[in-house]
Amino acid sequence: MLSTMQDVPLTVTRILVHGALVHGRSRITTWTGEGEPQRRTFAEAGSRAVQLANALRDDLGVRGDDRVATLMWNNAEHVEAYFAIPSMGAVLHTLNLRLPAEQLAWIINHAADRVIIVNGSLIPLLAPLLRHLKTVEHVVVSGPGDRTPLDGSPVQVHEYEDLIVGKPTTYAWPELDERQAAALCYTSGTTGDPKGVVYSHRSIYLHSMQVNMAQSMGLTDQDTSLVVVPQFHVNAWGLPHAAFMTGVNMLMPDRHLQPAPLAEMIEGERPTHAAAVPTIWQGLLGELIARPRDVSFLTHVTIGGSACPPSLMEAFDKLGMRVCHAWGMTETSPLGTVARPPAHVVGTEEEFAYRLTQGRFPAGVEARLIGPGGERLPWDGASAGELEVRGPWIAGAYYNGPDVEPLRPADKFSEDGWLKTGDVGTIGPDGFLTLTDRAKDVIKSGGEWISSVELENGLMSHPDVAEAAVVAVPDDKWGERPLAIVVLKDGAAADFATLRSFLLDEAKIAKWQLPERWTVIDVVPKTSVGKFDKKVLRRQYATGELNVTHI
Amino acid sequence: MLSTMQDVPLTVTRILVHGALVHGRSRITTWTGEGEPQRRTFAEAGSRAVQLANALRDDLGVRGDDRVATLMWNNAEHVEAYFAIPSMGAVLHTLNLRLPAEQLAWIINHAADRVIIVNGSLIPLLAPLLRHLKTVEHVVVSGPGDRTPLDGSPVQVHEYEDLIVGKPTTYAWPELDERQAAALCYTSGTTGDPKGVVYSHRSIYLHSMQVNMAQSMGLTDQDTSLVVVPQFHVNAWGLPHAAFMTGVNMLMPDRHLQPAPLAEMIEGERPTHAAAVPTIWQGLLGELIARPRDVSFLTHVTIGGSACPPSLMEAFDKLGMRVCHAWGMTETSPLGTVARPPAHVVGTEEEFAYRLTQGRFPAGVEARLIGPGGERLPWDGASAGELEVRGPWIAGAYYNGPDVEPLRPADKFSEDGWLKTGDVGTIGPDGFLTLTDRAKDVIKSGGEWISSVELENGLMSHPDVAEAAVVAVPDDKWGERPLAIVVLKDGAAADFATLRSFLLDEAKIAKWQLPERWTVIDVVPKTSVGKFDKKVLRRQYATGELNVTHI
Repeated sequence: MLSTMQDVPLTVTRILVHGALVHGRSRITTWTGEGEPQRRTFAEAGSRAVQLANALRDDLGVRGDDRVATLMWNNAEHVEAYFAIPSMGAVLHTLNLRLPAEQLAWIINHAADRVIIVNGSLIPLLAPLLRHLKTVEHVVVSGPGDRTPLDGSPVQVHEYEDLIVGKPTTYAWPELDERQAAALCYTSGTTGDPKGVVYSHRSIYLHSMQVNMAQSMGLTDQDTSLVVVPQFHVNAWGLPHAAFMTGVNMLMPDRHLQPAPLAEMIEGERPTHAAAVPTIWQGLLGELIARPRDVSFLTHVTIGGSACPPSLMEAFDKLGMRVCHAWGMTETSPLGTVARPPAHVVGTEEEFAYRLTQGRFPAGVEARLIGPGGERLPWDGASAGELEVRGPWIAGAYYNGPDVEPLRPADKFSEDGWLKTGDVGTIGPDGFLTLTDRAKDVIKSGGEWISSVELENGLMSHPDVAEAAVVAVPDDKWGERPLAIVVLKDGAAADFATLRSFLLDEAKIAKWQLPERWTVIDVVPKTSVGKFDKKVLRRQYATGELNVTHI
Repeated sequence: MLSTMQDVPLTVTRILVHGALVHGRSRITTWTGEGEPQRRTFAEAGSRAVQLANALRDDLGVRGDDRVATLMWNNAEHVEAYFAIPSMGAVLHTLNLRLPAEQLAWIINHAADRVIIVNGSLIPLLAPLLRHLKTVEHVVVSGPGDRTPLDGSPVQVHEYEDLIVGKPTTYAWPELDERQAAALCYTSGTTGDPKGVVYSHRSIYLHSMQVNMAQSMGLTDQDTSLVVVPQFHVNAWGLPHAAFMTGVNMLMPDRHLQPAPLAEMIEGERPTHAAAVPTIWQGLLGELIARPRDVSFLTHVTIGGSACPPSLMEAFDKLGMRVCHAWGMTETSPLGTVARPPAHVVGTEEEFAYRLTQGRFPAGVEARLIGPGGERLPWDGASAGELEVRGPWIAGAYYNGPDVEPLRPADKFSEDGWLKTGDVGTIGPDGFLTLTDRAKDVIKSGGEWISSVELENGLMSHPDVAEAAVVAVPDDKWGERPLAIVVLKDGAAADFATLRSFLLDEAKIAKWQLPERWTVIDVVPKTSVGKFDKKVLRRQYATGELNVTHI
């Protein structure tokens, strides 16, 4: 039976047109670091996005699904690019400015970007790369910063404002297929080359609706959101798209991400919501304790990217900022779970524990847990397995170049198309996810999994331990067993037996999970983003560099 | 460029599975009118929906896109049917129990329903119809009510509970195309045969997300919604689907729609939200004033179906129930606009006026105003035209039987596929819609439109006038001109010149819009739903039955 509904595609274009028209008064405020912030309404930004699309087509020759990259902070011009590029049918490629130069160049070449829009303050990062780029023809510069490093570069250089000034404020937007590519974002995996995730118009549209659902972030035009999470990081968790959908005002920090300017912009612009990773919040908390300010209006804080420490959540609760935990990844757009406690625990002692979980899946995200033997595990809050997810804003492959079948590596996608998240945890009977480890770090011991993170947290709760890392090492009998790698505090004495008893008695680790292999080192090696580099530790163990004691 | 997102269809099945699994603790509470209400969790209702699907397939032979109709009040079994039928690939056909018997029979035959699920209390309505039904093979009875009128009927009669008991609680749901038909609802138009609107899985899914957005109804699992708007009326405004998506508890009144039981269920079950048409609210208000009760928890009330009188909104405001106006129709699923005042008027004197408008369009609904000459009108808050809308949950045609092209009458759908709503009004610069008339009632005078409703409201604000209707009548010079039809209060004297001056001076009607033709009658003829029957009045004028004075 035929439906009689209209067939209207879900596109970024529709979000742009809607935001500029119906929420034209809503504002993007960009922090400048000196004097007044830059203020722009959605009507103005929408109009400038149209001008940008005209300029990209008419002056720079952008056609079809050409890739236009951005190397930018969070600011109004970056929002304009977010809407102009996909609406004209081209593909927005957000570049992660924290990546090493050679990885950036690799990504730009892999995506075959034709244009890069760059903030003036990031020219020192871009200029040395240019001679390694094979496809880039134009660089468009926006905002303050010395342009001279671009002199003599092998590309055409344009000023953003000069490019769009006087351009038409209308554009005959193409009729797009909602499954068409809209935006491209590479994951900075720890192994192998970066992998490109290509968001469709459909996935962005549906994800934006989900972000705006009351059960998720639930923002409206009464809100101002401080968008600290970078626009180059999974589309700033979808906030710019969600904001244009319902008129949420955006407060953009540009490059001013240090605790003091963040506190200053909160005090001055009075956002009601903010979104960032725990590290940013930890810094801000220190600033707010050192120099107390009125933050009573900022009632709703979304934390994601990595787990929020309980102490941080408690500290923000005391300031009246209600922390809401969320989980996601580049491959999930990113909204995968949101930890709003269920009705039956609100106001009880259980509530805080629920808020510390990763949260509950929205209707758009199906989830399953896969055990060590490939079996499907129950949602009993105890069985730990790898989380696999499925849904219209979840990746099912990686970009592999034009006219080439996408990559579907078996360690990332199941045979029936689900995403293997690489995260290990449990799901409770009411659908709340608790992550305990990364799949590559979990210790597979005799058909059971031991969480490296639980052992690490247990060790680090001992007063003598400064840092602790636990990695899997080969074991003839069990396949793998845990190796405990400990950094002791100054003056503390290493006593592995004591630490082992502590794990059993105080940290309540099951006996069969306790490490037999122990070593002390001076400092745990870290990755570029500050996480324990377990790859290095496993290699050091394999080559015999570590002095291991068996107990 | 290919997107790398998973291709997952948006289906009612996914909403069912999600609600029963992740929001299994949420509840459907059905009022019984005596003793304890019936209480059922989403897990239980979800499980029973699966059993119902098994029974429909295995015992009743429902296959493919067979139509299964419901003639039911709002209750848990009706919710089960809402999910079971579309999830198995069949089409849910909700029957409007307020329709005249011959129209119901016509609709059931037109849809070719094979099964009807009926509440026991509605058997007296269904039984006499059965011999006129050409395709119905099975009637399934649920809930209390005398079954004897079904004795000897030409169909097989089943008990709902007997049918589902012991059936499997799993079902290998078919992989559905999201554009496939999920539900069917006929509009009870005042002219011609009823028209069938066929909702797709996609349209229901997207509409449910929109209902749950904070800018719309914004409900979560912390809420309990009193769903007074009937499930046979545009899917109860999408609330059952939206509820399963985010775990909103539902309070269902079944057949107990009178003010006293409604007040009782509000007091007893403490809903936080309620949705109904103004008439219901007017009755409830009288009850709450006559017998005051604590309703402090019921903070959020959605009113739609027809315009909410300002006095009603003010009265509910005083009780702490915040009224939110919404507009829609069967053809719009129904969410077309929601009147949440924009941030810049909240707390100002303008706020109330914004809340009385029909509201603002969500991102999924594009709108345009078409003037008397077919021209597109500006959003200036002054230019009045017919509202046309476009979007993924807006109808683009009517059902016209199996294997037949859908109907696209030119008075209902534009050439480029937009829905002509038949509503006339203005749209402000910030996207707020104010409806002033129905297109068929507006007076087309010399290329300009005169609102019959404005003239009627003006006349009815005069102390001598009990009722007033204004209809268009043919005019040689202007094409059409207004005819004022007045019912005077007992003892009041007719003085057309005085009323005309009153319209000009007090009601601020422009001079060129004032009626020249006047008549007095005893009572305005009404339609079956209590609206002024202007068709009758126009016919009476045409046949010379009215005694018209020209001034």
